[in-house]
Amino acid sequence: MSKVKISEAVRFMVDCLKAAGAAAKAAEQQADLLIQADRLGHPSHGLNRLEFYVNDILSGACTPNNQPTVLKESPSTAWVDANNVLGATASHFAMDIAIKKAKETGVGWVTVKGSNHNGMAGYWAKKAADRGCIGMAFTNTSPLLVPTRGKQSALGTNPISVVANASENETFYLDMATTAVAVGKIEMQQRKGEPLPRGWAQGPDGKETTDADLAFKTQCLMPLGGGEQTSGYKGYGLSGVVDLLCGIASGANYGHHIRSWSHSGSGGPANLGQCFIAVDIDCFAPGFGDRLTESMQHWRKIEPSDPSLPVLAPGDKEKKKAKETDECGTVSFVQQQIKSCASLAERLKVKPMEVLQD
Amino acid sequence: MSKVKISEAVRFMVDCLKAAGAAAKAAEQQADLLIQADRLGHPSHGLNRLEFYVNDILSGACTPNNQPTVLKESPSTAWVDANNVLGATASHFAMDIAIKKAKETGVGWVTVKGSNHNGMAGYWAKKAADRGCIGMAFTNTSPLLVPTRGKQSALGTNPISVVANASENETFYLDMATTAVAVGKIEMQQRKGEPLPRGWAQGPDGKETTDADLAFKTQCLMPLGGGEQTSGYKGYGLSGVVDLLCGIASGANYGHHIRSWSHSGSGGPANLGQCFIAVDIDCFAPGFGDRLTESMQHWRKIEPSDPSLPVLAPGDKEKKKAKETDECGTVSFVQQQIKSCASLAERLKVKPMEVLQD
Repeated sequence: MSKVKISEAVRFMVDCLKAAGAAAKAAEQQADLLIQADRLGHPSHGLNRLEFYVNDILSGACTPNNQPTVLKESPSTAWVDANNVLGATASHFAMDIAIKKAKETGVGWVTVKGSNHNGMAGYWAKKAADRGCIGMAFTNTSPLLVPTRGKQSALGTNPISVVANASENETFYLDMATTAVAVGKIEMQQRKGEPLPRGWAQGPDGKETTDADLAFKTQCLMPLGGGEQTSGYKGYGLSGVVDLLCGIASGANYGHHIRSWSHSGSGGPANLGQCFIAVDIDCFAPGFGDRLTESMQHWRKIEPSDPSLPVLAPGDKEKKKAKETDECGTVSFVQQQIKSCASLAERLKVKPMEVLQD
Repeated sequence: MSKVKISEAVRFMVDCLKAAGAAAKAAEQQADLLIQADRLGHPSHGLNRLEFYVNDILSGACTPNNQPTVLKESPSTAWVDANNVLGATASHFAMDIAIKKAKETGVGWVTVKGSNHNGMAGYWAKKAADRGCIGMAFTNTSPLLVPTRGKQSALGTNPISVVANASENETFYLDMATTAVAVGKIEMQQRKGEPLPRGWAQGPDGKETTDADLAFKTQCLMPLGGGEQTSGYKGYGLSGVVDLLCGIASGANYGHHIRSWSHSGSGGPANLGQCFIAVDIDCFAPGFGDRLTESMQHWRKIEPSDPSLPVLAPGDKEKKKAKETDECGTVSFVQQQIKSCASLAERLKVKPMEVLQD
């Protein structure tokens, strides 16, 4: 692993996105979205994705300097056309509306069509949480989830995120794919040469497989819950709910109509659907933050079955990782990542990312 | 199994609730909630629960003839005190407000404290769906779910329900506990003398158990997703979200503070928290129903891994069962259920439920 100063990683991402053609603000917003994923310990959604966004811009699949527009509005809702801007631009636009409406009416509920991959869903829910709301964010994604009993994928990993700030500096932070795991976890088992646990993925015959290579090749993820006997149809249903709120409500692409996201940026606009919800906590019972904190602290104090593995509250892993990152001021990347950033710098003629010497 | 005419089962439930002290309307609304569960194939939430509600009324744990009140209101939200009425009374009151606000502002979001068990969550989401909304309903429940890594329960089976009507008479209907399974499924394995699948329940040592008797005795359910390796922390997080929306937002009891629901009605008021959401579909892209139907029909056409088990869309099982029930006009109950209804009739001095001869 090689260390890079946070500010330098951000500088590099902004430079690359600008070199590809994005205006400064769009590039900065997208780079902040990515660095936060690295900061919170979700590198799959961080710098690792930069080249995808760059290639989308260069190929014309994404047009970063368009402006999102509101197509329809009511006191508590908005229907937005992202006009194919970067995911961060679209999501800030939409969540800003949701927060504003939440402050006016109690709830803001915004659906977006014509959008692009918007990174870590929790980033968007957290934005509303930091304005005193319960924040929720959803996006549909390319098909990878196989409906229970089936042999082919038809829905995405379609994440659900719900974030709320509590008292004593606590934050309830849930950001989860509706598949049992994301593809990245299968890749990790491949690298380690270890079999998959049951309930993660299917082979081409539609049966559960523990063969990591076969699973990676097949790209058929099982929904949260795994097989039918362990209620995988619930994860399938939740993925369907996310698509209902995102693609189906907004008139974006949905389910099996969403193209796969290629590294090369081929395939034209993604036209993803997204949904952003903000609910003003002050509309309900006073003491929300105290009760939420008391809950989270209670969960952590539950006796663990293995004393070396304490019970966590949703978001504890991310909070710990963010604290570590902030203390050292650097993020770490695998060699392959550093190399591909060097190539990207050369291709885009931007200043290479400076890697700290050990 | 013994058959009972639907109308007779309803008559019996209404008579019992009235004999216990509920006014006619409250009794009728509660009975309709229960019969719909039997009609849709979820008998655990049907007539099976009648005696719990009756005992809650007789013991004073539930006061069915109070009136719910709105404690705070904004254009799109309401905070309601159910004042300890029956779950059906509270839920109609709250969802009616949510639907009205959805028609006025696009969204209605109502949290309720001081409520009682409100049956099948899908009943409430469906109420909003039948008024042209995306309907959502949540309730917290007595602790049964063990947070990942822990040895004790701290959250309920906390159901999530999302329902939306589509074109061609299709309905997307999701109603799911956030545990892998409900306790009723463990009882069924006990009766069949079969072991549990992995990922359902834990023994007193906090380890997964396949021993149905031990699991029933321990009453420690695993969250949707099972153990940590298969992402059970996601089901735990979702259960936490439900409590956040219900108990924590409304100021009702929450999490580990909720008492268990005893058959005898002892333990005083439950003070459950609930959340009802309605979103007007017309606020977003035209064609919602067509896209939803196209999705559901696509899922059903996916090639199944076992040709005898076709892929289902969320709600297909319930739809099939409801059709069968409506065609025969009867609901079927196990002998034990028929017997306990006879005892209840005697205790309450109401006309016994008439069972059809085979």
